[in-house]
Amino acid sequence: MFFKLRQMLICIAALLCFVAPLSLRSQQPRPTRKVILMIGDGMGYSEITLARNYYYGAAGRLEMDAFTETGSATTYSLLESKPALPNYVTDSAAGGTAWATGKKTSNGRISTAAGTNEPLKTILELAQSNGVKVGDVSTAELTDATPAVLGSHVSSRKCQGPADMADCLNEKKGAGGLGSIAEQLIDHRIDVLLGGGKQRFDQIIDGGPQTGKSVLDQAKETGYSIVTDLNGLNAAQVGDRVLGLFNSGNMSLEWSGDPAIPFPGSGPQKCHELSRTETEPSLMSMTLKAISLLGGDDLSSRFFLQIEGAQIDKNDHAAKPCEQIGETIAFDNAIKLVLDYARVHPDTLVIVTADHAQTSQIVPVPEKGSDPVPGYLSTLITTDKAPLTVAYSTNTICCAGSHFMEHTGSQVRLAAFGPGAEQFSGHHDMTEVFDLIRKALDLK
Amino acid sequence: MFFKLRQMLICIAALLCFVAPLSLRSQQPRPTRKVILMIGDGMGYSEITLARNYYYGAAGRLEMDAFTETGSATTYSLLESKPALPNYVTDSAAGGTAWATGKKTSNGRISTAAGTNEPLKTILELAQSNGVKVGDVSTAELTDATPAVLGSHVSSRKCQGPADMADCLNEKKGAGGLGSIAEQLIDHRIDVLLGGGKQRFDQIIDGGPQTGKSVLDQAKETGYSIVTDLNGLNAAQVGDRVLGLFNSGNMSLEWSGDPAIPFPGSGPQKCHELSRTETEPSLMSMTLKAISLLGGDDLSSRFFLQIEGAQIDKNDHAAKPCEQIGETIAFDNAIKLVLDYARVHPDTLVIVTADHAQTSQIVPVPEKGSDPVPGYLSTLITTDKAPLTVAYSTNTICCAGSHFMEHTGSQVRLAAFGPGAEQFSGHHDMTEVFDLIRKALDLK
Repeated sequence: MFFKLRQMLICIAALLCFVAPLSLRSQQPRPTRKVILMIGDGMGYSEITLARNYYYGAAGRLEMDAFTETGSATTYSLLESKPALPNYVTDSAAGGTAWATGKKTSNGRISTAAGTNEPLKTILELAQSNGVKVGDVSTAELTDATPAVLGSHVSSRKCQGPADMADCLNEKKGAGGLGSIAEQLIDHRIDVLLGGGKQRFDQIIDGGPQTGKSVLDQAKETGYSIVTDLNGLNAAQVGDRVLGLFNSGNMSLEWSGDPAIPFPGSGPQKCHELSRTETEPSLMSMTLKAISLLGGDDLSSRFFLQIEGAQIDKNDHAAKPCEQIGETIAFDNAIKLVLDYARVHPDTLVIVTADHAQTSQIVPVPEKGSDPVPGYLSTLITTDKAPLTVAYSTNTICCAGSHFMEHTGSQVRLAAFGPGAEQFSGHHDMTEVFDLIRKALDLK
Repeated sequence: MFFKLRQMLICIAALLCFVAPLSLRSQQPRPTRKVILMIGDGMGYSEITLARNYYYGAAGRLEMDAFTETGSATTYSLLESKPALPNYVTDSAAGGTAWATGKKTSNGRISTAAGTNEPLKTILELAQSNGVKVGDVSTAELTDATPAVLGSHVSSRKCQGPADMADCLNEKKGAGGLGSIAEQLIDHRIDVLLGGGKQRFDQIIDGGPQTGKSVLDQAKETGYSIVTDLNGLNAAQVGDRVLGLFNSGNMSLEWSGDPAIPFPGSGPQKCHELSRTETEPSLMSMTLKAISLLGGDDLSSRFFLQIEGAQIDKNDHAAKPCEQIGETIAFDNAIKLVLDYARVHPDTLVIVTADHAQTSQIVPVPEKGSDPVPGYLSTLITTDKAPLTVAYSTNTICCAGSHFMEHTGSQVRLAAFGPGAEQFSGHHDMTEVFDLIRKALDLK
């Protein structure tokens, strides 16, 4: 009896020996079914720090600070005239083409090759051909560079609608080309398209089979439900193919305040935090709805969704600190929703990065007798109740009531959460993000 | 026979069942015996990108890019007048006090509390009281802020030597204080002190028991071997307590070139890469020797070593891109040596970070008709054979032949290698580095 018991125990122990490694093997990462790529346009390290300081305080934490897998990425583009050479300061078109296609291109190009204009296959196209649903969300016009890189191929980012094709005459539909960015986004039958830029979709197509119709007509014929305000977005149903156009141009800004001015600058000021038009959905609303429309509640659904906080960049260009910070915080709030979603959907990989660095710098607060700082400045009173001065000093020109500061060439932050997130730590080039998404979703 | 074999196999399997968890347990991280903290003074993300682009090309990799555990850290300091409030732009004194003591202070202070002047215990002092050897290496004067924060407590960073005490009269030895930074570094009996700043140690002590002697005399009496050139350093023996003073002021710079000038800037230029005085040791030489002197070849030795690439910052202040990049590359080369050491000494934790961000920005290359950029610019021809323009635009003053640009307030890079390196990923404040080192070395 004793012997049998001992033998049985040994057998159980032996069995465990074989089972243990098997159970370890079964802990291999589960397949990634959902990838959410979040782009803070122009959201360099300085822009991140500025938003944290202002809204949460120097010792506070942004939602995006919760990522434990963090790295950085180079963003450089190529010279159009000599595509073998780098351009150390990218724009959003080439910056986005990098992760959208895994290839570098020259500034201004949308998923086409520098020099040759060859179309470069995008991660969205790959996802679609693998049966993965796709979404493209932005607070800019949907035809702006960052949303455009996923679902269009054109030599100039300016060619946003059929009436904007002056720089791309050979690429018009009437000339046998792929047409404007707006037309191509619709032709791609992207499952969810949410953002601004209705003006581009109202334009009339002047060549090809759709001649005389607007891009919006084209979208309807293709089966899109068109929504133009928050109520309409809320009413959209899972299964609908949705085109949301919530503003004629870029979407309304979250915050407002005094722009930066020459030394010693504007302020001290606090920002006005509720400036957005209520009938327009926030980036948070668009984010939640996009996830839902792509089947986010369905455990077996597979999707790739890009979400852009677009106007951090635009207000950096314009030297408007309150507007810039408001857009950064709105983007950060959207990150919180996505992280909350990913925590209960562990087949979701979340990536947060930026397409390029920007101009804003946190500088010492001007005092009596301070040496002047060139460029444009503003002093903000943060939630710490302390003064913070931001300087914009990469351009002096003043055009149409606003300055136009330049992008800068610093590497940017890359952060990830979910299966395989550790691969985003360390240093990368932005083109690697394409490969990491492709592998995560097992796209052939 | 068959039964016995089966029984034996089962027994072996059962034995493995018990041994396997034990062997897993024995894979717990080994004790960390050595910590090497590397500080690139003023080495923000922009400075890192600039050095990579120039020396290795946009697609190239710095040695420091090899780290896979990477995060970022906030660097803000406090306002001296209201220590509850942050100062969003730190200097090197408060920036260094953060990791040296785990506490924030106000700009200009060396390991003393804002407002109260209370001395704050440093990680070097903790290491010493735990029997851990300590070293402090810099390419600046050894009495400059970053090396000073480890082994001195003074209200003003200016109080570098006994003749520099105008701002710290009550802290002079003759007034019953701890004395100048130079005196305190010697009083701390730091095992290895290598850098510049001989002028401070040549000053005469004018109070207390050492009155009439130089700090160098004090060092000799305390048992220091004094070395003043590369040959002297090479001759130093393990077991010596070594004070290396290789320059009267800051150490010689590695590279030289034309400074930045107003738009459209200096250049296009290539930097002169061999400007350092040969009799002075490089940062690489000092790094290797410091590790060796601290017992680096002895498996059981325990040490804490700080290595500063000090003059990235100083040349950012001066708007001198070649000098800045040369110092960044020299620091990066020292990182390679330290990583090589840590790879074969797995009880070594390596940390690389910066004390604060700086002013330099990579901007679009000025072309015919370009809008002007304010501040000071220079265009460099990189190893890619492509033009890269760097702008310095946080101050307009011109003093003693050089501009004095301001620090900026962006978060900085934090990277680690070795046991516990994963704790440095994600977002931190610089004060946390103190705790992470303390725990790594198990300092009570």
